[in-house]
Amino acid sequence: MAERRPIITLTTDFGEADYYVPAMKGVIYSINPSAEVVDITHQVPPHDVYAAAFQLLCCYQDFPKMSIHVVVVDPSVGSRRRPIMVMTDDYNFIGPDNGVFSYVYQRERVNRIVHFTTEHYFRTPVSNTFHGRDIFGPCAAYVSKLVDWKMMGEEIEDPVRFNTPAPTRLPDGRVKGSVLHVDRFGNVITNITQIDLGEEAAGRDVVVRIGKHEATRLLSHYAEANPNELFAYFGSSGFLELAIPRQSAGKLLEAMRGIEVEVANA
Amino acid sequence: MAERRPIITLTTDFGEADYYVPAMKGVIYSINPSAEVVDITHQVPPHDVYAAAFQLLCCYQDFPKMSIHVVVVDPSVGSRRRPIMVMTDDYNFIGPDNGVFSYVYQRERVNRIVHFTTEHYFRTPVSNTFHGRDIFGPCAAYVSKLVDWKMMGEEIEDPVRFNTPAPTRLPDGRVKGSVLHVDRFGNVITNITQIDLGEEAAGRDVVVRIGKHEATRLLSHYAEANPNELFAYFGSSGFLELAIPRQSAGKLLEAMRGIEVEVANA
Amino acid sequence: MAERRPIITLTTDFGEADYYVPAMKGVIYSINPSAEVVDITHQVPPHDVYAAAFQLLCCYQDFPKMSIHVVVVDPSVGSRRRPIMVMTDDYNFIGPDNGVFSYVYQRERVNRIVHFTTEHYFRTPVSNTFHGRDIFGPCAAYVSKLVDWKMMGEEIEDPVRFNTPAPTRLPDGRVKGSVLHVDRFGNVITNITQIDLGEEAAGRDVVVRIGKHEATRLLSHYAEANPNELFAYFGSSGFLELAIPRQSAGKLLEAMRGIEVEVANA
Repeated sequence: MAERRPIITLTTDFGEADYYVPAMKGVIYSINPSAEVVDITHQVPPHDVYAAAFQLLCCYQDFPKMSIHVVVVDPSVGSRRRPIMVMTDDYNFIGPDNGVFSYVYQRERVNRIVHFTTEHYFRTPVSNTFHGRDIFGPCAAYVSKLVDWKMMGEEIEDPVRFNTPAPTRLPDGRVKGSVLHVDRFGNVITNITQIDLGEEAAGRDVVVRIGKHEATRLLSHYAEANPNELFAYFGSSGFLELAIPRQSAGKLLEAMRGIEVEVANA
Repeated sequence: MAERRPIITLTTDFGEADYYVPAMKGVIYSINPSAEVVDITHQVPPHDVYAAAFQLLCCYQDFPKMSIHVVVVDPSVGSRRRPIMVMTDDYNFIGPDNGVFSYVYQRERVNRIVHFTTEHYFRTPVSNTFHGRDIFGPCAAYVSKLVDWKMMGEEIEDPVRFNTPAPTRLPDGRVKGSVLHVDRFGNVITNITQIDLGEEAAGRDVVVRIGKHEATRLLSHYAEANPNELFAYFGSSGFLELAIPRQSAGKLLEAMRGIEVEVANA
Repeated sequence: MAERRPIITLTTDFGEADYYVPAMKGVIYSINPSAEVVDITHQVPPHDVYAAAFQLLCCYQDFPKMSIHVVVVDPSVGSRRRPIMVMTDDYNFIGPDNGVFSYVYQRERVNRIVHFTTEHYFRTPVSNTFHGRDIFGPCAAYVSKLVDWKMMGEEIEDPVRFNTPAPTRLPDGRVKGSVLHVDRFGNVITNITQIDLGEEAAGRDVVVRIGKHEATRLLSHYAEANPNELFAYFGSSGFLELAIPRQSAGKLLEAMRGIEVEVANA
């Protein structure tokens, strides 16, 4: 039987050019040498809590149960915002209490939220500008060593959460949503799911409008599209996406998070 | 005796800003917690199968025997192109059957090529746009657990391959080749090897021409060159390269893949 | 008791698009499968030994004792500059003898500096342009396997070192320092520490001048500052830094390494 190393994932806005990410890893490995640290991304735009929440949403469930997901996008570092751990049956989420776990609150049954208060588990002295290294990293490492949460802090009931943007269905059947993310390929990911469109969508002809552009076909994969065709499909995270084969739909559409998207019958 | 963790390498065009790479890693670690995932690069230009093939070529042999090399540069994902595994004595290569393993076919004795068909080893439901997470990653994880290939698919004989660009020798002794890659330093890597130039090259004066520029010296390392000198040398992957000390030869030469390079006697 | 895998960190100017970093990792894992390779950064500007020294300085102490820190920023690769290992009580540092360990010489008690000369521990044939793969990586892997340094080379006494930029205190009490680094957020990191300012700084009103700009408050964290306010604080690496909340101070100040910074009483 293979030995299972506890996995700690990192999602930050630190980039990869500075010492911030390796400092966190060094601290984690110092506390728990058998931990396995896995990068989700460090290219979250600076201070963009929404973008971090989105990336985490799209992959946290692919990790083994008991993985610890650490997010450090933390514009209020050093202030009184609380360092927290969100505990569900399958995962523990660690980061600042700034709403970055809003999708988790929405999608998971949360057993408990812990406010880390026990300085014994911090790297001291705690810097006022780098809690990733001094609080979140060390606490994640101790949690991976199965330290009881009761030793580490106190339960809270009032975490900060933001409204995750939800599509709306108009009386005439149109669905209005918005862009969540534009990826490296220029694929435009919306917040509209198959459920939002209703079951009839599968076999139906639809028009997806964004700005002055529209996609008139809902396809199953890129190779079905014609050259230069803007088309729609349900992507790997379950959301409706827009793409152009081997080109950037994001550039053509000048898409960015928050831009409105409308789906109508053809 | 140190325990050997099976190594799975990843070469993709996913970039590091999106959830695609960590989703693959999460799936792999979920199936085989003792695997060790190592990134080759995720910065292959989008859809550039040739660039992926080149990067893999230059380092796959540096990994321990029995490593599994996964490549996901897959513009035809979701279509009927086959997910395959190329098995050699020392390595297994997993990816789409789109020619990305053409250098492997050329350089290695291939024992067998397997078309993965057994859905039991896929992450289901299989997304039509992310076989890295749903087919290649999981299959690599199962292969790293020594699942028999016969359980996973069927042998095929007709993989897609592209012609790897080969230099030609003219009757007058000149050798014509082309640029394979320009690296981060602006070093221009050609497809010409020492063998192509003949043994006499070592001690010989040569001229390397590219566009309107020429390098008149074949040196052994950067520090031998004069400031601002464009010079040639055999690089770490065995290919003839062009460089300028602490400057980008690639910029000066406006070099990109496919540009012609000529080597002549001085 | 958790098994401790020996950690080897990598700091290079190789970027992440080319095969250079994975080739080093493949070689290391081939020699010592139980090593754990951790990236510090590969985005050091090409050939910038000072930048590499700074990043290493800011995080090497966060790693477990006995970690091996490998730096490959090596513009003179292939010349007669020596491949060395700097041995301290807690860490071994491996890289070219080009001054990149100058901060280590300044801050650590160095037990010994070894010039690697034993080709048995190199990957052969040694490329003249990639000692990261052929000398530094393999030597680090053998050191992680506890090979005796006496087998690997000879002690030297005269390593190359550069003067680490130190702030000066003027007779009138002003402190003149300089910029060491601008990070991803645009935070401007100087070489001035709390000790340089004297103990009185903590409660004192100070003015920090850089070019035509000045920060008039020394705060403890970002959220204390007003919108658009340029302010100073002691950062996570112990140095005085300048920032603007959620903006890039580096852009506003046109800051780069070496630019003068002055601290005076208000």
